[in-house]
Amino acid sequence: MRVWVPYEEMLDDLSASANKVQGDLYDGGAVPETIDDVEFYVVPYMSGAHTFELVASMPRLRVVQTLTAGYEDVLPHVPSGVRLCNARGVHDASTAELAVGLIIASLRGFPAFFRAQLDGAWAHERRVSVADRTVLILGYGSVGRAIERRLIALEASVVRVARTARPDEGVFGIEDAGPLLADADVVVLALPLTADTRGLVDAGFLAAMKDGALLVNVARGAIVRTEALLPEVEAGRLVAALDVTDPEPLPPDHPLWRCPGVIVTPHVGGNSTSFLPRARRLVRDQVDRYAGRRDLRNVVA
Amino acid sequence: MRVWVPYEEMLDDLSASANKVQGDLYDGGAVPETIDDVEFYVVPYMSGAHTFELVASMPRLRVVQTLTAGYEDVLPHVPSGVRLCNARGVHDASTAELAVGLIIASLRGFPAFFRAQLDGAWAHERRVSVADRTVLILGYGSVGRAIERRLIALEASVVRVARTARPDEGVFGIEDAGPLLADADVVVLALPLTADTRGLVDAGFLAAMKDGALLVNVARGAIVRTEALLPEVEAGRLVAALDVTDPEPLPPDHPLWRCPGVIVTPHVGGNSTSFLPRARRLVRDQVDRYAGRRDLRNVVA
Repeated sequence: MRVWVPYEEMLDDLSASANKVQGDLYDGGAVPETIDDVEFYVVPYMSGAHTFELVASMPRLRVVQTLTAGYEDVLPHVPSGVRLCNARGVHDASTAELAVGLIIASLRGFPAFFRAQLDGAWAHERRVSVADRTVLILGYGSVGRAIERRLIALEASVVRVARTARPDEGVFGIEDAGPLLADADVVVLALPLTADTRGLVDAGFLAAMKDGALLVNVARGAIVRTEALLPEVEAGRLVAALDVTDPEPLPPDHPLWRCPGVIVTPHVGGNSTSFLPRARRLVRDQVDRYAGRRDLRNVVA
Repeated sequence: MRVWVPYEEMLDDLSASANKVQGDLYDGGAVPETIDDVEFYVVPYMSGAHTFELVASMPRLRVVQTLTAGYEDVLPHVPSGVRLCNARGVHDASTAELAVGLIIASLRGFPAFFRAQLDGAWAHERRVSVADRTVLILGYGSVGRAIERRLIALEASVVRVARTARPDEGVFGIEDAGPLLADADVVVLALPLTADTRGLVDAGFLAAMKDGALLVNVARGAIVRTEALLPEVEAGRLVAALDVTDPEPLPPDHPLWRCPGVIVTPHVGGNSTSFLPRARRLVRDQVDRYAGRRDLRNVVA
């Protein structure tokens, strides 16, 4: 069995495994000569559309494993009969940590303190703590749960909302979210981007949020209608912390960059040192399962 | 029984209580005329030395209750026979949340992202996550435990160190900290300032920390020898996040303000919205205990 992986460390894992596996390195650069034999393809992380299009040139392919949770870009390239698995769970720690860091930074006033630091100004002031706040998490999957665990440790109250209500898990449906939005101090978006969630956070959604509330987006930029968010933050009625934007990257002259009360980070939710060890564990496990003819995890198509 | 409290909300709590308590508001401004009768004095929060010195003019005083965890400044003014109680626990949530926020901000590169935001620059880069890091907490009291709970939720490993080893709690003594310091990615100071801890983080301590490690101080500035820290951060061998400094406030021209890799916040660890509800709960409970002739909590002298 031939497996393509995008990191040297993953090649080492394949060599060390008990399975009869031949591995090649493909990181989005030069295409290995073994393309006619590859059965299990680990798509390089955030390396461009050509890494998806290559799937069409792999005649013996059986499994496409992404290293992202989202798979909307690769899905159209996966032939029938080939299984597509995503990286559910791999980015939870990194993304949830960023979400929580952005909430603390916004509520406790880090941008103002960091600016004051440039001027050598000791500008003590009382700020809002995360403790005692009500945080609505929209999207209660793997990342949403990871955010919740961290917020509970911070003594916040969490309200769970998803597109579909799951009463057995205490998850409200989005159609019932109106009064919950009005009570939330912070709203965190942790949904996948789908036809249903594109533009979900529109003028009506934002208007339902309470005065002074914080919107945090660590999901996908296009879930929020930027043109609806802009007047709310420009007026100072809402504040925001956005790791993803629409458009993305945000052009240098875009007004979101310089809105007071808005933090923008450049889509770094999943991109930290916690990624590679968790990605290696997933790929090792998936290759073992495939070699042992056991069920794969995270099969999404 | 007459009680002085520094907040209107605390006066309301006294009025609502079942105890026969007469309350006055003293917030560090005009001194109430009832000074000859006050038995229970809640010292105004961070309001200056005159609020400690006033203790000498209270002939019927029995209890001094601070709203800070540290009590080094008020202690010399408390006559024998008067009990001194501190605010252990009141600031845990606020301070621990700030410590964790500073760790995420430093490791995940918030200062650089916030500066890039001023220029409208989308500067994506891989950063170090808190997850998988080893964090040494020096000082394992109430705040140290609160920091630990939050770090464990963030998937960090915690090493507990205190001035005195407590093997039953898994707490190492400071005299054994050398090899632990060499392994820690982050060192968080959560100790009280005492004669023993003043200047504890000196050149030798800092030299024992590993290259690139982060020092976080949410305790008291004078625990760290600033003149020993400066060359380490100026050389880029260590990074730091300091909510407290020595001197404090840091003068506008102090070199710490502009060291690369150093975050300074203006002593805001305890000063957030989570303070007042927790301070009210403590004062309500202490007045009830005093009125009911039960043991007071947090008696420190």
